[in-house]
Amino acid sequence: MNQTFLSAALLPLLAFAVPAVAQSGPSPSERLRDAALGDNVAFDIIEGLTTEVGPRLAGSEAEARARTWAVAKLRALGFRNVHVEEYRMPTWLRGAETAEIVAPFPQRMAVTALGHSGATPPQGITAQIVAFDDLDALKAAPDASVRGKIVFVSHGMRPAQDGSSYGYFGPVRRAAPSIAATKGAAAVVIRSLGTDYHRNPHTGLTSWAEGVSPIPAGALSIPDAENLQRMLARGKPVTMHLVLTPRFVGDQVSGNVVAEVPGSDPGAGILLIGGHLDSWDLGTGAIDDAAGVAITAAAARRIMETGRPRRTIRVVWFGSEEVSGYGSKAYRAAHQAENVVFVAESDFGADRVWRMDPTFAAADKPIVDRIAALLAPLGITVGTQRAEAGADLGAWAKAGVAAIELNQDGTRYFDLHHTPDDTLDKIDPAQLAQNVAAWTAMLSVLAYAREEIHGAPTAP
Amino acid sequence: MNQTFLSAALLPLLAFAVPAVAQSGPSPSERLRDAALGDNVAFDIIEGLTTEVGPRLAGSEAEARARTWAVAKLRALGFRNVHVEEYRMPTWLRGAETAEIVAPFPQRMAVTALGHSGATPPQGITAQIVAFDDLDALKAAPDASVRGKIVFVSHGMRPAQDGSSYGYFGPVRRAAPSIAATKGAAAVVIRSLGTDYHRNPHTGLTSWAEGVSPIPAGALSIPDAENLQRMLARGKPVTMHLVLTPRFVGDQVSGNVVAEVPGSDPGAGILLIGGHLDSWDLGTGAIDDAAGVAITAAAARRIMETGRPRRTIRVVWFGSEEVSGYGSKAYRAAHQAENVVFVAESDFGADRVWRMDPTFAAADKPIVDRIAALLAPLGITVGTQRAEAGADLGAWAKAGVAAIELNQDGTRYFDLHHTPDDTLDKIDPAQLAQNVAAWTAMLSVLAYAREEIHGAPTAP
Repeated sequence: MNQTFLSAALLPLLAFAVPAVAQSGPSPSERLRDAALGDNVAFDIIEGLTTEVGPRLAGSEAEARARTWAVAKLRALGFRNVHVEEYRMPTWLRGAETAEIVAPFPQRMAVTALGHSGATPPQGITAQIVAFDDLDALKAAPDASVRGKIVFVSHGMRPAQDGSSYGYFGPVRRAAPSIAATKGAAAVVIRSLGTDYHRNPHTGLTSWAEGVSPIPAGALSIPDAENLQRMLARGKPVTMHLVLTPRFVGDQVSGNVVAEVPGSDPGAGILLIGGHLDSWDLGTGAIDDAAGVAITAAAARRIMETGRPRRTIRVVWFGSEEVSGYGSKAYRAAHQAENVVFVAESDFGADRVWRMDPTFAAADKPIVDRIAALLAPLGITVGTQRAEAGADLGAWAKAGVAAIELNQDGTRYFDLHHTPDDTLDKIDPAQLAQNVAAWTAMLSVLAYAREEIHGAPTAP
Repeated sequence: MNQTFLSAALLPLLAFAVPAVAQSGPSPSERLRDAALGDNVAFDIIEGLTTEVGPRLAGSEAEARARTWAVAKLRALGFRNVHVEEYRMPTWLRGAETAEIVAPFPQRMAVTALGHSGATPPQGITAQIVAFDDLDALKAAPDASVRGKIVFVSHGMRPAQDGSSYGYFGPVRRAAPSIAATKGAAAVVIRSLGTDYHRNPHTGLTSWAEGVSPIPAGALSIPDAENLQRMLARGKPVTMHLVLTPRFVGDQVSGNVVAEVPGSDPGAGILLIGGHLDSWDLGTGAIDDAAGVAITAAAARRIMETGRPRRTIRVVWFGSEEVSGYGSKAYRAAHQAENVVFVAESDFGADRVWRMDPTFAAADKPIVDRIAALLAPLGITVGTQRAEAGADLGAWAKAGVAAIELNQDGTRYFDLHHTPDDTLDKIDPAQLAQNVAAWTAMLSVLAYAREEIHGAPTAP
C-alpha cells in the first residue's frame, strides 16, 4: 500500500455517485485517475509473472503454474471470490526446430513452428523452395507447381499505430499452410508476421481447413525471409532442410482465473474486464498479455480501494487466448446468463492508450461523456469505431453488451508479438501507468454510475 | 561500371600527384570523394557475402567457401594479383546449446557458447547458480563458494560512440571462464557483452590461462541475464540445466585473401589495408566484418579506376580475426620484410566515420593535412589518439608503420556484435557510402603523394 493509494482511499464514496457538478479542485475520479499515473501494481504483476512463471503456453504445465501464481497474487492484492474455472482443450507442444539452406548457398535460418503445425520426421525433410509474394499468388498456383515442395510465402506487413496491418496480412499465417497442404506441399515457411528486423521468428496459430492433415508449418525471421528472397532472386533452385517436431498431446486442463471487486447493488450489473494469462512459449509474454491482465487488475484494485462501488467489477485472466480462445468460449458458455452490463479487455501491449471507442445505447451518452472528459487529459480521443472488445470478450459485445475499447499505440507491438523478444524490458513503465490511469478513470465512472447501463445496439 | 565512375576515370592522373594549388572547382580528390558518396560496390559486396556465403567461422568449410567467393569477386572487380595465402589453425565448432532454469522458476533462457568453450556431456549438467556483479567479485570469491557451481557474471556495459565500453567490460568474457575454472566451477554463463535488449546472446572468444582445462562457458542474452538477476534477488537457490556441446576439431585450413591495385613506383612502398573475411557463426557477419572488407575494397577500386597510382594498394581480407587472429599473425610473419609504408583497417561496422586518428612522422604533416582537409566536409574531425590500426594490422602500426584509424560511430555496434542479428538489414547504405568516401579520399592522397611516407614514431 503506497501513499498515493492512501489519499485515494479517503475520498468520500458518495462523490462517485454524483454526476459532475460545479466543485472546487479535482473530482474524486480525476484524483483517482491522476494517482494511477504513479501506479506500480501493474508493473509488479508483469515483473512477477514473467520472472516467476515466464512462458505459459495454453494447456501446458506452465500455464497451470501461471494459474496458481495468479490466484495467489490476486488474493494478495485483496480481490474477493478468487478462483479458477477449469476446462479441457486439445494441446500442442513445440519440439525441435531448425532450418538450413542446403543449396545453392548453405546457411542456417532462424525458424519457429506455427501453433498447430504438423511435424517433420525427427531427421527433417529436404525439399526445393517454391516462393509466393502473397497469399493470392499461392491460391492461384497450380497444384503441380507446389506438390512435394516447401512453400515460402512472403508479404509486405509494415507497422501501423492501430495494428491494422495484422488484420490485413494475418491470413498469410492462418491460411497459407492449409492451402499449401491441400495442394500437396511438403511443408510451409512464411515470412514472420511482424515488423522488426531481428532473428526472432514470430509464432502464432495456424488453422487447418476441415479434413486437411497438418503439414509442417513454420515462420522464418524477417532477416532470414529477406535473405531467402535474395537467394531466390539469383534464379537457381533453392533447397531447404527443415526440422519441426511439435506434437499434439491430446486434451489437457486449462482454465480461467476470476477475481472480483464486489459491488453493493446486485441489480446494477457486472462490469466484466480482463486480458489473457496464457502466452506463446517463445518469450515471457510481457506485452502479450501480462500487460493486459496487469492493467485491468491494477485499475480494478484502485476502485476496490475507494470502498464498495455500486457495481461488481469482475476481472478474468483468460486461459488459451492464443490457442483457439478455448478460455473465452468456456467462460461465455458458463456465464452468459449473468447480468453483465459492460465488457472491456486489454490485449495490445503496454504502450499508451490514444483513443477510446465506446459502444453504448444512446441513453447512456451521459456516462460516455463523463468517461471521455476524464480521458481527454491523458491524451485520449474518442473514436467512432464499434468496440469489438477483443478476442476474449468480443462475443459479449457482439451480443449487445456495452463495451469500450481503450486502443493502445501498436506501432512497435508487432516488433515483439509472439517472439522470444516479448520480455519485461519491453515494458515502458510510464506508458503502462497511463493505461492504468485510463482504465481507472473509466471504471470509476462505470462502477459508481447511478444510471442504468443499457444493452448496446448489436452490429448490423 | 556506373556513370559516377566514368567521370572519375577521365580525371587527369597527374592531378593527384600535385599538392593542392589554386584551382577552379573541386580538386580530383574532392571529386573522387564526392562520387564515392554514391558508391554501391561496398553494399554489393556485403549483400553478396551475406547472401551467398553467410556465417563463416574461422577454420570452417564456410570460411573456405568465403575465400572462394572473395577471390571471384575481387577478380571481377578488376583487382590484380588476387590470391589466397593459406595457413592452418586449431579450430572450434559450435554444438547444441540450451539453458533452462529448473528451480525455483522453470523457464528456458537464450544462451550461446563462447568461442573455445568447453563442452558439457550431451545431456548437459545441472547445478546451482552462484552470481557475481563483476569480474573483481569473481576474482575475490573463495574457491569453496564456486566449486561445482555454474558461475554467473554480470556487468554494466552501456553503449559508447567510440566502443570504449567493450574495452572496459571485455575481460568479463575473455577472463571470467578461466578464473572460474581455476576455482573449480562446473560452468560459466556471463551476461552477454552487448548493449541491446533482444533474445540473441553475444558470442566471442574466451581465453584459457596456461594449464587450465576449458569448462563450458556461455553467454545469456541480456533479457535473460536480467531475468536471472531478478530470480536471484528473490533469495532462493536458483538451479540451471545447461547444454553446450561445442568441440575442438584440430588443425584446419584457413587463409587470407589478397588483392592489389598495382602502383607505378615499387620504391614508394605499399599501402596495406583491409578487414576480416571470417565472422562469428551466429549471424551473417554483415557489420563484422563484411562491411570492412567491402569499404576497403570499394575505396581501393575507386583509386584503381583513376589509372595507375604511384603506390601499390594491397587489400587483405584476413581469415580468423575472430579466433585468435591467426590470419594477421600468418600474414605479418610472411610479409614483414616488405616495404609497407602505411596501414589502415576497417572493423567496426558500417556506420559513419566521425574522427580520424593519424599516426605519422612529423615530416609527413603535409600529407596528413591534405587528408584532414578532404575528410572535414564528410563530418570527420581529427583526433589525437594514436592509431592502433586494429586487430589485423595493429602489429604493423606498433612496429612503426604510419597508420590512420577512420573511427566509426559505434553507438549501436554492440547491439549487434557477435549475435544472430548481424545481418544485411543492419547496414545503412548512406552511412556505408560515407565510409567509402572517407577511405577513397584518404587513399587518393596516400597513393599519389609525391612525398615519402616515413615510419611513424613507435609507441613509448
